[in-house]
Amino acid sequence: MEMKVEKKYGADISSIKEAQERISSYVHKTPVLCSDSLNAIAGRSLFFKCECFQKGGAFKFRGACNAVLSLDDDEASKGVVTHSSGNHAAALALAAKLRGIPAYIVIPSNAPKCKVENVKRYGGQVIFSDPTMQSRKDTASKVLQETGAALVHSSNDSKIISGQGTISLEFLDQVPQLDTIIVPISGGGLIAGVTLAAKSMNPNIQILAAEPMGANDAAQSKAAGRIITLSETNTVADGLRAFLGDLTWPVLRDLVDDVITVEDKEIIEAIRLCYEILKVTVEPSGAVGLAAVLSDNFRNNPAWQDCKNIGIILSGGNVDLGVVWDSLRK
Amino acid sequence: MEMKVEKKYGADISSIKEAQERISSYVHKTPVLCSDSLNAIAGRSLFFKCECFQKGGAFKFRGACNAVLSLDDDEASKGVVTHSSGNHAAALALAAKLRGIPAYIVIPSNAPKCKVENVKRYGGQVIFSDPTMQSRKDTASKVLQETGAALVHSSNDSKIISGQGTISLEFLDQVPQLDTIIVPISGGGLIAGVTLAAKSMNPNIQILAAEPMGANDAAQSKAAGRIITLSETNTVADGLRAFLGDLTWPVLRDLVDDVITVEDKEIIEAIRLCYEILKVTVEPSGAVGLAAVLSDNFRNNPAWQDCKNIGIILSGGNVDLGVVWDSLRK
Repeated sequence: MEMKVEKKYGADISSIKEAQERISSYVHKTPVLCSDSLNAIAGRSLFFKCECFQKGGAFKFRGACNAVLSLDDDEASKGVVTHSSGNHAAALALAAKLRGIPAYIVIPSNAPKCKVENVKRYGGQVIFSDPTMQSRKDTASKVLQETGAALVHSSNDSKIISGQGTISLEFLDQVPQLDTIIVPISGGGLIAGVTLAAKSMNPNIQILAAEPMGANDAAQSKAAGRIITLSETNTVADGLRAFLGDLTWPVLRDLVDDVITVEDKEIIEAIRLCYEILKVTVEPSGAVGLAAVLSDNFRNNPAWQDCKNIGIILSGGNVDLGVVWDSLRK
Repeated sequence: MEMKVEKKYGADISSIKEAQERISSYVHKTPVLCSDSLNAIAGRSLFFKCECFQKGGAFKFRGACNAVLSLDDDEASKGVVTHSSGNHAAALALAAKLRGIPAYIVIPSNAPKCKVENVKRYGGQVIFSDPTMQSRKDTASKVLQETGAALVHSSNDSKIISGQGTISLEFLDQVPQLDTIIVPISGGGLIAGVTLAAKSMNPNIQILAAEPMGANDAAQSKAAGRIITLSETNTVADGLRAFLGDLTWPVLRDLVDDVITVEDKEIIEAIRLCYEILKVTVEPSGAVGLAAVLSDNFRNNPAWQDCKNIGIILSGGNVDLGVVWDSLRK
């Protein structure tokens, strides 16, 4: 067994650099795109870190790969398990496939067929649960007991946070002049890793979280000074409905500078701009950072007047074109 | 007046390297994307050169920029003129704007509104002609006489060919193991430049042209040994309807290894794969190279069995999402 080292925030610049060492030959170093047209619309210089081009179509592969590769051979031989119907599930299945170990993915029975197919395509073993969170957790526990597989949570996990943090190592190397990074927030694994790495490299950099108004638990949590969970969420950004955990929340509380909330219609307009101007397929959750930069909430806030060189993480691009097109026409 | 140097093919590796020197601080060095999923579908390693991320949304800016920056100050002060309703028009307007000179763009009166808007957005002066090619040429000649502006043809122009050739300099630097490059063909400026540079750097590299069955003048020309023009074309790839010229045809005749023709339905499937797997917005003309690699015409031809590392130029991404979506549903 690896000795557990207590880390104040679940990860730090060392664990993130170790993650980079571990995963760099497996993950894509994703490109940064720029557009003069979008800069003109935003009135700032925007730099888009295109994690939609990451293997599996989202940043999630970084963390999943770090988690799977961190297991010792004994642990690994029993496989990994998670409950998720989204990008983390597919990413974990893909990472497990690369290591040649089983991935048990608990998926609620009402999950979209295409997401189930994604997991199967990467060789994941799908186990259906009832749609409730309790049933998902119970089913995952049962699989854990039966298989001895290692549970890999989608966000509240040190290895996951460290893996996602590798984005900042690349991003600040690609665009050293970044003064701000805007990051979608859901369970908080992405923003925790990005923040811990970026603020260690440049303590003056601003980190802003972006989330939909219909799932604004991060904004509420930051305002209340404690984790708030919502009894229901309502947003087109289906990937941003998870809640903070005990490893990710302290980073939001202490180190993230603010949370910007956007309306769904702003997310949909941002998707359109990504498609038509940047020429990039993003899923609704992936477009929330651009939506934030273009929102009145951001533009009219004097606190952000000095943000000139803004990094935006386009977190993923897994979307059925038909779904996007339908939302654009609404 | 610059002295005209006769070049067998209108451009060569020297003129292409000069172009790179001239334009490199103005153009994007576009990224190369890869996808294990698409490799599995194709049964080869595919490398996508994403010119859809180029300024103006297409490779055309490279040539236009080279042409505009090659003018001496006297010539430049009178501006540039072209007749085109497509990506070249917008690219020339953008290049002229960067140099602060006028761009007169002759556009047929039936051109799509969005393309007219693109030209205007970049500061181009739009002059409408009747839709016939004769009227377009006559109107451009009239503008030439009145303004003394320099005519910049969209493909059959040495500076244009040299500018487009800079793609190969980047591509072979990014992916030295390429053994094949597949290039959309229309007027032939892109493939002429790409071929001249690539074969100079690696004489063994295979260059394949890709074009729609409904506008297969290049395949017919190559088979006949002379330029064939079609009385009408019928394809979803609206950017691939131009014909070869006296500078571009000899490159196709002598140096391009073959022409692969694809059906419109194969182009539309390739668009879908670009959107959903590669996460890139391509216009129909831009997807024809991927369509070719996946076509039975290519897969079943023993001549191409040894093509293992294939570069595909995604030439542009300027498209109205609604148009693409409508074509995908047909």
